[in-house]
Amino acid sequence: MLGRAQLTAVAEARSRLLSHIGEIKPGVQRLPLEKCLDRVCASQVVSPEDLPPTDRSTMDGFAVIAADTFGASQSMPGYLDIRGEVVMGEVPAGKISRGTCFKIPTGGLLPAGADAVVMHEHTVPVDSEVVEIIKPVGSGANLIKQGDDIRKGAVAVERGQLLRPQELGLLAGLGISEVEVYAPLEIGVISTGDEIVDYREIVSPGKIRDINSIVLSSLVRRCGALVHDYGIVSDDENTFFSIVEEAVTENNLVLFSGGSSVGMRDLGEQAIERIGNPGILVHGVSLKPGKPVIIGLCDGTPVFGLPGHPVSAMVCFDFFVRPAIEILSGITPVSTINQPSVQARLKRNINSAAGRLDVVRVQLELEGDVLQARPILGKSGAISTLSQAHGYFLIDEDSQGVSSDDTVDVYLYP
Amino acid sequence: MLGRAQLTAVAEARSRLLSHIGEIKPGVQRLPLEKCLDRVCASQVVSPEDLPPTDRSTMDGFAVIAADTFGASQSMPGYLDIRGEVVMGEVPAGKISRGTCFKIPTGGLLPAGADAVVMHEHTVPVDSEVVEIIKPVGSGANLIKQGDDIRKGAVAVERGQLLRPQELGLLAGLGISEVEVYAPLEIGVISTGDEIVDYREIVSPGKIRDINSIVLSSLVRRCGALVHDYGIVSDDENTFFSIVEEAVTENNLVLFSGGSSVGMRDLGEQAIERIGNPGILVHGVSLKPGKPVIIGLCDGTPVFGLPGHPVSAMVCFDFFVRPAIEILSGITPVSTINQPSVQARLKRNINSAAGRLDVVRVQLELEGDVLQARPILGKSGAISTLSQAHGYFLIDEDSQGVSSDDTVDVYLYP
Repeated sequence: MLGRAQLTAVAEARSRLLSHIGEIKPGVQRLPLEKCLDRVCASQVVSPEDLPPTDRSTMDGFAVIAADTFGASQSMPGYLDIRGEVVMGEVPAGKISRGTCFKIPTGGLLPAGADAVVMHEHTVPVDSEVVEIIKPVGSGANLIKQGDDIRKGAVAVERGQLLRPQELGLLAGLGISEVEVYAPLEIGVISTGDEIVDYREIVSPGKIRDINSIVLSSLVRRCGALVHDYGIVSDDENTFFSIVEEAVTENNLVLFSGGSSVGMRDLGEQAIERIGNPGILVHGVSLKPGKPVIIGLCDGTPVFGLPGHPVSAMVCFDFFVRPAIEILSGITPVSTINQPSVQARLKRNINSAAGRLDVVRVQLELEGDVLQARPILGKSGAISTLSQAHGYFLIDEDSQGVSSDDTVDVYLYP
Repeated sequence: MLGRAQLTAVAEARSRLLSHIGEIKPGVQRLPLEKCLDRVCASQVVSPEDLPPTDRSTMDGFAVIAADTFGASQSMPGYLDIRGEVVMGEVPAGKISRGTCFKIPTGGLLPAGADAVVMHEHTVPVDSEVVEIIKPVGSGANLIKQGDDIRKGAVAVERGQLLRPQELGLLAGLGISEVEVYAPLEIGVISTGDEIVDYREIVSPGKIRDINSIVLSSLVRRCGALVHDYGIVSDDENTFFSIVEEAVTENNLVLFSGGSSVGMRDLGEQAIERIGNPGILVHGVSLKPGKPVIIGLCDGTPVFGLPGHPVSAMVCFDFFVRPAIEILSGITPVSTINQPSVQARLKRNINSAAGRLDVVRVQLELEGDVLQARPILGKSGAISTLSQAHGYFLIDEDSQGVSSDDTVDVYLYP
C-alpha cells in the first residue's frame, strides 16, 4: 500500500510531468488545407497579402464622396447622379467625381474616387439617373478598407495553434492551400494481468474482461492520436518488460494499466526505471480515485502506469495523460482559460480527506429551474457507474467535504 | 431587407425546425464495438449477465466469515487459520468454515462460505498459517456482490445514447462485441455567388475566395457526419435550383451559403419552396449576426440558406444546424443540461437592440486572478476575427446591452 506521506499532490505531479516533456516536439508534415482540421500548426503562417485587397462595401447602397452627403436630411435631401453600378466580382469601370455616385452591393469593390457608402435605407430613388440621399455619411462609412481584415505580413496562425474550422477559413481566405502541421502522436496501450481476457473471448470463471484497452484507446483517439494496441500482456516479468520496452521504442507515449496489487505495481515501477532515463517521476498521487498512478519518462517517452479500475484509469487519463498528449502534440496551452463548467446544486453531503483531491462523478437532473447534481457512489471498480456520469466536480485539497445544497461547478464529460 | 416585424425569435425558429425533424431517423448499421466510438446507439442494449458474475473482493486482505471478526481490536485481536490463497483469475479451491480464512487479492473471487473481506491493513501476520484480525467487519464488507455492478436484463445503453469511451468500456465489460448504431448523416454543402472562387485558384480583382465551404464542411465533420461538397454554384436560377435539388435528393441535410443580397435571398427561398414540402419554415431571425438565415424542409430533408459572411454562417450553424444534425443523428437530447461556460468580466459596454439575441465573440485574458473578456468588434465580414475568438457570450432579447465590468458567461469554441 502507498502511505499518505509518499503521495505527490496532483498539481505538483502534473507540473513535474509537463516540465519534463515541454521540449519534446513531434515530427512535421505538409498537408493540403482540407486535411488539416483539428491538427496543430507547426510553423507560423503570415498573410501573403492585404485582405481585403481593395476597399469593399459592407452594405447594399451607393458609393459616394462623403463630403457630397454632408448636411443631407429627410427634409433637405442631397441629390447625386448615378454614374454606374458595381457588379459583384467585377472591377468597377469609371470613376466617381463630385456630385456623382455608383450603385453598389454588399461586398462590391469601391469605385475609384469614392470614400464611403450610403446605405440603401438612407436613400430614396428619384429615377434611373438620380438618387436622393437623406442621411450624411463620414469618410470610410460602410466600408472595409484594404488590409482592414488582415495586413500583408501579419500573423494569421501561430505555431502551436489548433486548426479549428475558423483557422481553416482564415487560411482559405488568404489563398493558403497547404500548411505544415505536426504529425499525429503514436500511443501504445497495454493491458496487464493474468486474470484479464479479451472482451471478445469466452470468459472462464475467475477471469475478467479487458475494459481498459477499449476505454483508453478511445480516449487517445479522441485526442487525435494514433493507437497501437499491444493487447493483454502477462504480468510475468520478462514478458512484461520486453513488451513495455518495445512499446517505448515504437511510440511517443505509452500507457499500461491493470495491477493495483503491490506486486504488479512494483513490476511497473521497475520496468520504467530499467527501460530509460530519468525513469520514475511520480509514484502515487493524492487523488481519489487514481491514487496508485505511476508516471515515468524513458528517454523522451512518457510512460504511465494507470490503475486497473476503469474509473480510476479514466480520472488519471483526464488529469495527467491528456495534458501530456496535448503538450507532446505541439499545442501551445492556453493556460489562462478555466475549464468550462455548469453550476449545479449538490443532492447530498460528501466527505473528503484533507490534503487529497477528490473527483466526484455526478448525474445531473433538472428539478424545477435548478440543476441538481446527484453523486454516483458505486462500489469501487463498478463499470456501470462509468457511463452513468454526466460529469464530475472536485473537492480540493483544502476541503474536508461539501454539503447538501452547496453549489458545485460540474465539468461535463464530452 | 428584412424588416424587424418579419423576423422570428431564435427559440421559436429552433423549436419550429426541430419539431419538424423529430421523427426522421437515420439508417442503422451493425458494427464491431471497436468501430463504435462517438456513434449513436440505435437499439437498446440490455445486460446479458450479472456483473460481476460472482462476489469479488475490492481489497487486498483476507476473506472471512464476518461473525468471526466481531469484537476484534488492536488490544484484543481475533485469530484465524489461513486455509488457502485466492489466485487472480482462478476459482478458489475449498471452502471457508468458522475460524478460518483465505488470503485474497483485490478482484479475487470470494471463496465459498466467506461473506466479507478484512483489509490487509487491519491484520497482523502471525505465521504462514495464522493471521491476527485487529478490526471487525460487517457481512458484505469490502466486496462487490454478484450483479452489484449491473444485473442481467438491466439496460446497459439506451437507444439514442452517444457511445463515449465510457459506454464502450461498459459494453466490453459485458462481452458485447457488436452494436447497432445509426449510419452517419450525409450532408451537402454548396457555396453560391458569381464573385466566389475556389481558394486554391488565382483570384482576379473583384473576386473573393470561398471561405464558407471549408468552414461549414469542417463544422459538419466535427459532428461526425459525412460531407458532400458541391463546390461553388452560380446564382443563375436554373443552375442553382438543379444543384440544390440534386443535393436534397442525395443527402440527409443541405447547407447553402452566400448571397446576403436580396436577389440571392429570394432565389434561395424559391428553391426551397419549389423543391419539396413543406418548404420554408423560417426566413429571418432576431439574431445578430445571422439575421438573414433561411430554414426550410424539402420532403424530409432540412435545407439551410446561411448568410455569406463566414462569421454569420458559423453562428447560424451553432444555433440551428448543429442541433438539427444532432436530432437527425438519432441522439436523444439531454435538454436538462446547460451548455458549460466560464465566467469572465467584460472589458467594455456593448449595446444591443431589445428583442434581438446578440452573439458577441470575445478574447479571454487573465488579469491578476480575474478572467477578462474583450469583445471582438471587427468590421462586418472580417475573417480574421473568426480565429481570434476564444468564445462568445449572449445578450438576450430582454436586454438592451451589458456594461463594462459585468460578469458574463462565455461559451468556448471547441
